[in-house]
Amino acid sequence: MSSMDEIVQLAKHRGFVFPGSEIYGGLANTWDYGPLGVELKNNIKKAWWKKFIQESPYNVGLDAAILMNPKTWEASGHIGNFNDPMIDCKSCKARHRADKLIEEAIEAKGEELIVDGLPFSRMQELIVEHDIACPTCGKKDFTDIRQFNLMFKTFQGVTEASTNEIFLRPETAQGIFVNFKNVQRTMRKRVPFGIGQIGKSFRNEITPGNFTFRTREFEQMEIEFFCKPGEDLEWHAYWREFCKNWLLNLGMHEESMRLRDHDSDELSHYSNATTDIEYRFPFGWGELWGIADRTDFDLKRHMEHSNEDFTYLDQQTNERYVPYCIEPSLGADRVTLAFLCDAYEKEELENNEERTVLRFHPALAPFKAAVLPLSKKLSADALKVQQDLAEDLMVDFDESQSIGKRYRRQDEIGTPYCITFDFDSLEDKQVTVRNRDTMDQIRMPISEVKTFLTNAIKF
Amino acid sequence: MSSMDEIVQLAKHRGFVFPGSEIYGGLANTWDYGPLGVELKNNIKKAWWKKFIQESPYNVGLDAAILMNPKTWEASGHIGNFNDPMIDCKSCKARHRADKLIEEAIEAKGEELIVDGLPFSRMQELIVEHDIACPTCGKKDFTDIRQFNLMFKTFQGVTEASTNEIFLRPETAQGIFVNFKNVQRTMRKRVPFGIGQIGKSFRNEITPGNFTFRTREFEQMEIEFFCKPGEDLEWHAYWREFCKNWLLNLGMHEESMRLRDHDSDELSHYSNATTDIEYRFPFGWGELWGIADRTDFDLKRHMEHSNEDFTYLDQQTNERYVPYCIEPSLGADRVTLAFLCDAYEKEELENNEERTVLRFHPALAPFKAAVLPLSKKLSADALKVQQDLAEDLMVDFDESQSIGKRYRRQDEIGTPYCITFDFDSLEDKQVTVRNRDTMDQIRMPISEVKTFLTNAIKF
Repeated sequence: MSSMDEIVQLAKHRGFVFPGSEIYGGLANTWDYGPLGVELKNNIKKAWWKKFIQESPYNVGLDAAILMNPKTWEASGHIGNFNDPMIDCKSCKARHRADKLIEEAIEAKGEELIVDGLPFSRMQELIVEHDIACPTCGKKDFTDIRQFNLMFKTFQGVTEASTNEIFLRPETAQGIFVNFKNVQRTMRKRVPFGIGQIGKSFRNEITPGNFTFRTREFEQMEIEFFCKPGEDLEWHAYWREFCKNWLLNLGMHEESMRLRDHDSDELSHYSNATTDIEYRFPFGWGELWGIADRTDFDLKRHMEHSNEDFTYLDQQTNERYVPYCIEPSLGADRVTLAFLCDAYEKEELENNEERTVLRFHPALAPFKAAVLPLSKKLSADALKVQQDLAEDLMVDFDESQSIGKRYRRQDEIGTPYCITFDFDSLEDKQVTVRNRDTMDQIRMPISEVKTFLTNAIKF
Repeated sequence: MSSMDEIVQLAKHRGFVFPGSEIYGGLANTWDYGPLGVELKNNIKKAWWKKFIQESPYNVGLDAAILMNPKTWEASGHIGNFNDPMIDCKSCKARHRADKLIEEAIEAKGEELIVDGLPFSRMQELIVEHDIACPTCGKKDFTDIRQFNLMFKTFQGVTEASTNEIFLRPETAQGIFVNFKNVQRTMRKRVPFGIGQIGKSFRNEITPGNFTFRTREFEQMEIEFFCKPGEDLEWHAYWREFCKNWLLNLGMHEESMRLRDHDSDELSHYSNATTDIEYRFPFGWGELWGIADRTDFDLKRHMEHSNEDFTYLDQQTNERYVPYCIEPSLGADRVTLAFLCDAYEKEELENNEERTVLRFHPALAPFKAAVLPLSKKLSADALKVQQDLAEDLMVDFDESQSIGKRYRRQDEIGTPYCITFDFDSLEDKQVTVRNRDTMDQIRMPISEVKTFLTNAIKF
């Protein structure tokens, strides 16, 4: 398997991902998507929207604001419960996430224990039982464990009074719940139906890391799917399969993913079923997608905290109920990183050379093709071909260096087809089309290239 | 002209824009895009990306983080200069933006004066000269004018120490400037070239308002276009024209827009030329697009504040220089509102009835078509037509109410084509296609509908 370092280097070197604010020494694990990264991520978002919204007979889209009335976070429980356990070393003042501190100390002994979710008192006991020392200074003198709320706080309006305190949303889901009735009514939807959105969320993680896997600012693609109570487990199974197939159809290797169904003792108290889709990153398994049956927990919480009535009248059966909700929640940055890792390959060629190739599904590749004039004398004519294709597709144009080096560069950024314009092209109006994966070349009329590419990138 | 109220009502009633956090009484001028609003706005963003990035031989994309190292804002001048003049009424404690307070008081007298940008001392004089009273309580007892910084402040990491203070970006532009070298190098770009991005920005406006026109959270579509000093005025003229044509080609009425070139005394000290493209909203003229020649101001500021060298070596002439920069900066929410206002029409029909129609360019319309079975008995067959079209296009399906009411609803949400599936369709495999604007109907084979629609929405 490739190392994370190689992927981070390629991402930076080829314009996929740059360190954020790099010229000022960066800012703790922020990242900027470069010209190729933004295309890759946009293609992933488009593929999600196509399958989850556009083609879906059930779902419609939404784009709610990042800034919400703080009562939202009281109702959702984020003000009360969205905390990480924080502990300080009294000696060196280093600050740690208590659960991670314990897990890593136990892991270092070759054992394993899931600490996340245990009561603080039990965590304190574990620190004593396992004789855990501060990883920074080696002393064993810790403060008590305290709650640390993960929401970013800011102030709206002109004073910093507590009445003006607002939060950056820690998830997009609540923007959907508060609009349940607005959407249902304006779109005249009947249960079962879903509402999906893509947007930024913010969590003040104590320890962000692993490149773009865990960042404080991140993007989510979430569906809240409302169904009749009692039909929720069926729908959970439906979306579990739908999500898995979305990844497989976009070319993700089945052996690099696993579906982990939560045991009853791992489930949230309100959840009937939860499945995590995990990907095997170079640094280990990491969650991409949580598919949770959240029952009527969220709608009921909002009913209690607002004056809104979120019951639904089933006009066929005349039953009135609060719908149950299935939530497939996907991290846009995480799945982008997963597709990048999954596509990455160093291949030995027959001539003992090596090439790096990103084997993206053509629908995800930043450029669908690159037009390469064989000589600079052909640039003007080749550019016309590129400009015509660019009306419908992202297509690169490259007239630098030898043709072999240009092929290698396009392989390395995952371009599925290279279109070489040579001196014969002037006469016969044909070009050579090279396949990234097989490296096979075929000759094709210029007039047929657009249709060929359009079919190749279908998803 | 239609009133803003009518448009706000339609937007809410039809699922374009809902008040943010509405079930909790809202949050000062935040708005959520509903199922149709998110499609409209996404179509506008796609149309921008297509013309400014995909088809452009010059420009590439970027997606930089919202959270940046605070040194960025020192360099850009936002920490020092990004302020509004704030004034309080000593009597009733009402808080005002001093320039707006003065402008509105003078306007009420039938006079006009641009106060924005005047020194505070001059503003204080104007308040006395014009005998201005507090609009809230009528008293004339104000505090001094003070600076109010418009950046949203938050804290990253686990303490609220000033060393952890960061800001939500007030513009996307600086994410481009700090990546100038990263992009130029990885994409092997030669001047002239541009970098574009779409993303959220945040400004703590003292008085947000006018629906989605001025909001604290908003989205920008910005290009920073780098060129050789001396060629900047030519490029400014090029992008001025390009931006205007983008709006016209998307169907915006020419008589509803104006291009306002800044006079020399209105120009920023570093700018060689600036043009605002304004739209005539129901509440008055408002800026959509600022197209500014910012010279080398931004790159030089960042060179001074970092250790980065942003000079560029022109390999043809062997000259070395800091590129000049043209910045066409468009508000995504504003232009979405402008297209909504521009499309809105109440039309008298021949039979003395009235219909409301949104005459969106088909590329911008949320749904490209709606499939309408003439009878519920035809639903299953009509749904197959919709599902086939939905693989490539956003297409609605509506089996409720009379066909006449369904046409009216589709007119009101701007769907350019209604496809009626009737009993003959079962036999002759044809459908009736109704044009939103002319209301003309033609009969067409089902197999030709997708190509017909695809051609109709080209932009």
